[in-house]
Amino acid sequence: MKKNILIIGAGGVAQVVAHKCAQNNDVLGDIHIASRTLAKCEAIVASVHEKKALKADGRIEAHALDAMDVEATTALIERTGARIVINVGSAFLNMSVLSACLATGAAYIDTAIHEDPRKICETPPWYANYEWKRRGECEQAGVTAILGAGFDPGMVNAYAKLAHDEYFDSIESVDIIDINAGSHGRYFATNFDPEINFREFTGQVWSWQDGKWASNRMFEVGREWDLPVVGKQKAYLTGHDEVHSLSQILKVPNVRFWMGFGDHYINVFTVLKNLGLLSEQPVKTAEGLEVVPLKVVKAVLPDPGSLAPDYTGKTCIGDLVRGVKDGKEREVFIYNVADHKEAFQEVGSQGISYTAGVPAVAAAMLVASGEWDLGKMANVEELPPRPFLALLNRIGLPTRIREGEIDRELSFS
Amino acid sequence: MKKNILIIGAGGVAQVVAHKCAQNNDVLGDIHIASRTLAKCEAIVASVHEKKALKADGRIEAHALDAMDVEATTALIERTGARIVINVGSAFLNMSVLSACLATGAAYIDTAIHEDPRKICETPPWYANYEWKRRGECEQAGVTAILGAGFDPGMVNAYAKLAHDEYFDSIESVDIIDINAGSHGRYFATNFDPEINFREFTGQVWSWQDGKWASNRMFEVGREWDLPVVGKQKAYLTGHDEVHSLSQILKVPNVRFWMGFGDHYINVFTVLKNLGLLSEQPVKTAEGLEVVPLKVVKAVLPDPGSLAPDYTGKTCIGDLVRGVKDGKEREVFIYNVADHKEAFQEVGSQGISYTAGVPAVAAAMLVASGEWDLGKMANVEELPPRPFLALLNRIGLPTRIREGEIDRELSFS
Repeated sequence: MKKNILIIGAGGVAQVVAHKCAQNNDVLGDIHIASRTLAKCEAIVASVHEKKALKADGRIEAHALDAMDVEATTALIERTGARIVINVGSAFLNMSVLSACLATGAAYIDTAIHEDPRKICETPPWYANYEWKRRGECEQAGVTAILGAGFDPGMVNAYAKLAHDEYFDSIESVDIIDINAGSHGRYFATNFDPEINFREFTGQVWSWQDGKWASNRMFEVGREWDLPVVGKQKAYLTGHDEVHSLSQILKVPNVRFWMGFGDHYINVFTVLKNLGLLSEQPVKTAEGLEVVPLKVVKAVLPDPGSLAPDYTGKTCIGDLVRGVKDGKEREVFIYNVADHKEAFQEVGSQGISYTAGVPAVAAAMLVASGEWDLGKMANVEELPPRPFLALLNRIGLPTRIREGEIDRELSFS
Repeated sequence: MKKNILIIGAGGVAQVVAHKCAQNNDVLGDIHIASRTLAKCEAIVASVHEKKALKADGRIEAHALDAMDVEATTALIERTGARIVINVGSAFLNMSVLSACLATGAAYIDTAIHEDPRKICETPPWYANYEWKRRGECEQAGVTAILGAGFDPGMVNAYAKLAHDEYFDSIESVDIIDINAGSHGRYFATNFDPEINFREFTGQVWSWQDGKWASNRMFEVGREWDLPVVGKQKAYLTGHDEVHSLSQILKVPNVRFWMGFGDHYINVFTVLKNLGLLSEQPVKTAEGLEVVPLKVVKAVLPDPGSLAPDYTGKTCIGDLVRGVKDGKEREVFIYNVADHKEAFQEVGSQGISYTAGVPAVAAAMLVASGEWDLGKMANVEELPPRPFLALLNRIGLPTRIREGEIDRELSFS
């Protein structure tokens, strides 16, 4: 039974993770939050106290940490006695935080693949570029490392595994659809760090089709989907971590990821990209100042955290799975709908951060209880989905299924 | 008889001015080009030699000069013996260059109103904000200062004066229409310094309607015009220097300026403006670097000078004048059509620079000959238009007139 959590990062998702850990600290124990900027960690601690989120008596503490520094992270894990590390910091940190977990035996949980800051849109196989190279190390050390335990990747991987185990004899395709039908009321804003947000879309789009990688340009392939609650929404083929793991682990011949974008978002993105303002390569002004254009764009855009109080509307994210069951063609859509305003009222972050953060806490609770504490590296679809989805039904992200005319909540008890 | 020219500035317009001066150096004498960057002046000198543009034997020389420094400019005028200064540098320099002319007795010619770098879109009366305050000084010193002697302002002022003198008993309205129907083949570029270009459009739009100033937002009032050669083109009400001088000097009740913009230009402009990327107020990046967003936009956009070799198509700029003649309503369109490619072949700049630079040289030739050497400050519409337009017919910008079904070249001999 592992206890005591170290949260790496202090952004919107870390805020959600801290609140959810606090709401479940009878299971999870002490909570520590660490990032480069101590004040941001302290603000999260203050907001947890303000909401009286701690279920049981217990500690929640802020720490300054450069998590690129493996020794410093190792020392902090040892000093705090944390046995589970939830890494929701920058995507550049994964490998160093994992190293600190290996050094201490603490379990590792993240919500997105590792990225090299010098590379934009790395080509697949994504997990095999960094994470999976260290499978052997984890197994030898008996260290549990759960990769991609947010919503997408994360819950959508559990949905695919559930469909694979219970709804199909064979799966032809998994289309993961991510729609944010919410509104922040600003001219333009990204829902998380603009630097990371834009990096996802400036290169090629990779999808897994007919058992091999296919490449498109961003916004080249769009399709209108008719979804529960949010209705008809246009989404575009986009590269995403789980396309790689699901295609390899569940051996599905078609795995595609579709991200919803409004025409306005696409227009702003296209203008900025074509002008060169999304470039991470420095330019020199007429006055001789060296500047990275993307960092200036980030500076003029609203801080994603500032959007939460005014955010209204819903997200709908799920897996449309097609295949064969008992000799007949079948199609199911397994999904969750989350509400921005409710998320803000509960944990002080908007719905996008909420859907990313809550599953990581569910994963931590299953590691704490031993159910997911495998002592090796695993993607979510390698783990039993029922306890995960049952817990998420209870702690804020209920799963529904739509098949033909029937649309109902899924129960896992 | 004044001789010897000092050109201030070394951009696209200065290039045109230098070539045209060289083509007429039998009248104008020595040519000196001065700007902060000596290399840019030297490049212009080299291009004049390369085209063998000098009509008669004579000097053309490059000088390094900060024209904000009145003493340095005064010294350069004295050292070179220049009696006519053509200021086609930044709009921030007008008042200091004028001071140097007053100190030396040299004639002053510019092509745009003075601007304070700290103010965006100053409110009218524009000329009365800076230039006209110094009318008395010029008259006392007997210094000729010709304001706004480019195309617009410049030729369009002469067109209005010609209409006033020869085509109408009373003028109801002057609509100045500026269409660039050319194509540079890039995703987006401005035709002159992006910093100055965008500054024109980020504030309010002022026009003179029914004998008073009226204010609109940029791109609020658009109208499709059917023009010679370039056909149907959409243009938008825009603030412009000559709206002020024409309304005051010719006492016309309606003076409006219409600038042509394609939907694509407006879209890019709108995105950049709404995001705050056209701001001249510094922002701070996450890394703590202070940057002026507009200067970064300028750094990523193509250098306007680099567009010239690939520029194709035509400009059409003119005055649509409505009023009464002999008791009957009358409407004439007096205009010029210029060609980007021909301009580049002749002087190495595109058509926008060509139309701005050639009239300034015509003004200098009329000062040299004495016809426009009034010994005081004047806007173009205060000067006889016929010698100016006759000269421009001959040196590259012929004037045409359209009235009803008839469209013909105007001859002034």
